[in-house]
Amino acid sequence: MKIILVNNRFKENTEKKAQEIAGQLSALNVEVIIDNGLDEPYAGTVDFIMVLGGDGTMLRAARRYGQRAIPVLGVNMGTVGFLSNIEINELAEYLPLILREEYSLEARMMLEVAVFQQQSLLTRVFCLNELLLRSNSPRMLSFALEISGQKLEPYRGDGLIVSTTTGSTAYSLSAGGPIADPQLDAFIVTPVASHIINKRPLVVSPEREISLHLLEEREAIIGIDGQIKMDFGAENRVLIKRAPHPLLMVNLKAKPFFTSIDRSLQRQ
Amino acid sequence: MKIILVNNRFKENTEKKAQEIAGQLSALNVEVIIDNGLDEPYAGTVDFIMVLGGDGTMLRAARRYGQRAIPVLGVNMGTVGFLSNIEINELAEYLPLILREEYSLEARMMLEVAVFQQQSLLTRVFCLNELLLRSNSPRMLSFALEISGQKLEPYRGDGLIVSTTTGSTAYSLSAGGPIADPQLDAFIVTPVASHIINKRPLVVSPEREISLHLLEEREAIIGIDGQIKMDFGAENRVLIKRAPHPLLMVNLKAKPFFTSIDRSLQRQ
Amino acid sequence: MKIILVNNRFKENTEKKAQEIAGQLSALNVEVIIDNGLDEPYAGTVDFIMVLGGDGTMLRAARRYGQRAIPVLGVNMGTVGFLSNIEINELAEYLPLILREEYSLEARMMLEVAVFQQQSLLTRVFCLNELLLRSNSPRMLSFALEISGQKLEPYRGDGLIVSTTTGSTAYSLSAGGPIADPQLDAFIVTPVASHIINKRPLVVSPEREISLHLLEEREAIIGIDGQIKMDFGAENRVLIKRAPHPLLMVNLKAKPFFTSIDRSLQRQ
Amino acid sequence: MKIILVNNRFKENTEKKAQEIAGQLSALNVEVIIDNGLDEPYAGTVDFIMVLGGDGTMLRAARRYGQRAIPVLGVNMGTVGFLSNIEINELAEYLPLILREEYSLEARMMLEVAVFQQQSLLTRVFCLNELLLRSNSPRMLSFALEISGQKLEPYRGDGLIVSTTTGSTAYSLSAGGPIADPQLDAFIVTPVASHIINKRPLVVSPEREISLHLLEEREAIIGIDGQIKMDFGAENRVLIKRAPHPLLMVNLKAKPFFTSIDRSLQRQ
Repeated sequence: MKIILVNNRFKENTEKKAQEIAGQLSALNVEVIIDNGLDEPYAGTVDFIMVLGGDGTMLRAARRYGQRAIPVLGVNMGTVGFLSNIEINELAEYLPLILREEYSLEARMMLEVAVFQQQSLLTRVFCLNELLLRSNSPRMLSFALEISGQKLEPYRGDGLIVSTTTGSTAYSLSAGGPIADPQLDAFIVTPVASHIINKRPLVVSPEREISLHLLEEREAIIGIDGQIKMDFGAENRVLIKRAPHPLLMVNLKAKPFFTSIDRSLQRQ
Repeated sequence: MKIILVNNRFKENTEKKAQEIAGQLSALNVEVIIDNGLDEPYAGTVDFIMVLGGDGTMLRAARRYGQRAIPVLGVNMGTVGFLSNIEINELAEYLPLILREEYSLEARMMLEVAVFQQQSLLTRVFCLNELLLRSNSPRMLSFALEISGQKLEPYRGDGLIVSTTTGSTAYSLSAGGPIADPQLDAFIVTPVASHIINKRPLVVSPEREISLHLLEEREAIIGIDGQIKMDFGAENRVLIKRAPHPLLMVNLKAKPFFTSIDRSLQRQ
Repeated sequence: MKIILVNNRFKENTEKKAQEIAGQLSALNVEVIIDNGLDEPYAGTVDFIMVLGGDGTMLRAARRYGQRAIPVLGVNMGTVGFLSNIEINELAEYLPLILREEYSLEARMMLEVAVFQQQSLLTRVFCLNELLLRSNSPRMLSFALEISGQKLEPYRGDGLIVSTTTGSTAYSLSAGGPIADPQLDAFIVTPVASHIINKRPLVVSPEREISLHLLEEREAIIGIDGQIKMDFGAENRVLIKRAPHPLLMVNLKAKPFFTSIDRSLQRQ
Repeated sequence: MKIILVNNRFKENTEKKAQEIAGQLSALNVEVIIDNGLDEPYAGTVDFIMVLGGDGTMLRAARRYGQRAIPVLGVNMGTVGFLSNIEINELAEYLPLILREEYSLEARMMLEVAVFQQQSLLTRVFCLNELLLRSNSPRMLSFALEISGQKLEPYRGDGLIVSTTTGSTAYSLSAGGPIADPQLDAFIVTPVASHIINKRPLVVSPEREISLHLLEEREAIIGIDGQIKMDFGAENRVLIKRAPHPLLMVNLKAKPFFTSIDRSLQRQ
């Protein structure tokens, strides 16, 4: 068996923990690769990915390995662990189940985000939460949204979020979007501080393609999962589709989504 | 070929039009059944259902025939025709296509709503838009929502809507719900004037089951598509599932959902 | 000194407590009138009004005595006591201050609600929280709002609330209205489940007059503070103004509004 | 008579128009000062200020001259002229009324914004629309809001707007705030994409003072009327009060606020 241990090099405790777990796993004849985010993703085949950290580390792991159909387990060492299944202090208890592959897998839709300059592809990224188009100055943006070729009336405002259902409880929720079931594949399209007040959040079939471009030159950026940031100008276009493969999240124990999120929101 | 013509007996012009169309179709050797909503639904097999009227008549037709896997065409004779595909003055033009079955079908998820008194089933209804639980007095309700056995924190407020994606642009939108793609199967769960202000609209996988019951005795009702109204007390429970069959809506011409709804909202 | 003790005849404990306090006050040479809401309001002059109960009892007391410029103290015996200043178990401690008139007064704007049938006045009510116009059936209302003669575009939806700033944290908040400072005199006008999605909550100068009437005959009601309910038809009109006198609320101790409401909403 | 003509040096047509009007006024023995925003505000006494341009030019004029108790007339030459009273092509018609001082004045509350570094005052600005505190990176802010010493529960999110009633229809509306009557003096406090979902817009008495500071170091900015932008760090604090003097807006003709704003929102 071969495992990637993903940690967060900006959090020393996750680096130490990764070393410690690597030691334990090696003693059990498991081959371990440690990925602290600095180098390129490990290119070889592996059987399992264990992520040590909070939701930020999970989002990064999903971008790096989410398209490979490998089980990914989130082990929470941070404050916000919506994407984790177990806490770090539960790991010893669950390790035998991991080694015997006694867990269920939950498929989570990911986004494929392609950014174009005129006709040429600049970059392609896969992500678990959301794509954000946002003004990078106090001036609002004027932009166009197309859904599988259907042109909507122009938007004006701070920006717009295209989220997965997983991402619906992150930035999209702050901007007024609905809470969406991660068992469902869908895009959640949520305007941010829309100047056109009758623009509402949209729930869009995952079979569709969503395209965004500016209607006038402004200082704008696109953001991926709040971690990657790119300038975005009038000559750019971003195209969002469902990624070819879902993230395979490992569930060692049941984590009922609606009761968890509802309770956490009542106690904010 | 055998066709049911559904009209609205409260709108004289739809009754006249039904008679007129029935005459034309008979001359073309099509057998015609007229359903004005007064009698029981026609029980025999038919090939096609044509609905003359606005969205209200379509909703009634869907409840009566939506589970039979028969193509249903909405022919708009009213003011609000979101659910119609053609206008009444276009019917002559499209009639040959109907007879040659040259159209596409769009599957629209329906709800199966079961109302219980303690353990016993009181009634079961299929509907296209939404189930509403609402206070029938100026006092607010206190009620429980369960999603596939996951109990959420209690709700207090005027009520709650469980809508299909088709119904998302009807009452659910007024109550603050998102606009959902009818090509997607999902429940949209939208609280109405929730006293608990952190209760948000939910987008729920169609594989789930949704259950509602009161947490204290109040004057409450449940409403189906704004057309059926039933008293609902503390001893009742309503269970909502995806109906076994979708409504098969006939598209003689393309009607792009997002541009239509967006434009109509910008020009409200 | 002469005091009215207002209790809630539907809550036995408030009746008992009123008797007990009446005994104590008589022994101190204070004349006591008990008002349990059954009879007409006491017509004589008094120096102080003490309200035993929750917010519901305070709202009733405000309607009955709020226009008389008499200090009113809310003594909370219920679950929701936003309008109370002290808890029942604090009364003994604060009684000397009451008798020595050592307290501050906080003026709270009240509404004057006049309901007309054609040109003739049907009834006039003063209230502390809000006037509600609402559909009394599953069908939505179509109605007109005028602000000091300015006619707004027609509304369609479940209804509309005209609230004071005091009432802004009650039903208006559930319907999406802002939280308003009770030290400010203003109307908060909040639509309920508006079908016209670009209708927003309005904050209106207290110098204005607000008028509402239906644009087509429907089963509608108006409600006052959730306690009074009247049928409202197409031949009716309701006119809302700032009442001539504010309610004089007694503050024996400081009750900072924003921290209180914010904390209570975070812990709902 | 002495008049300041304010124009927008970035819009050539307003500069030309200013020259043309200056010529006409000089011929009528009116002394004219032209202010194109480049130099310091004119320091001498004047009788009237005429602003040629859209809302942006009015906002700048209000900052420069709003505290001097001089009548200010907005003459719309732009696309968005909420703050203007007449259109440029109406000026000839209304000029005699201006010279005879036949107009009414409408007092509009302004903000006094003071930015501190520790205890020392960095800058003080007067503005007509709003103060914005906003994250200047994709990471959200954590910040504290105090209202006259009342500390609210911490905020997390993109930021927060403190607006006048005049500013309520600008950025605050996009962020979900209510529409407020400019005849009313009040602060409208609207969170922008609040991560704490039960944070609601607040309507605050103009007698209060509002204070904001960060709870952890982040890249943040404050913005004034969308025109001035300053870095804002953990050692800064911004204090917002009602400005000592309102802006005196000239009304040559009635411009009913609610019908205007309602109509413009229905036709967005």
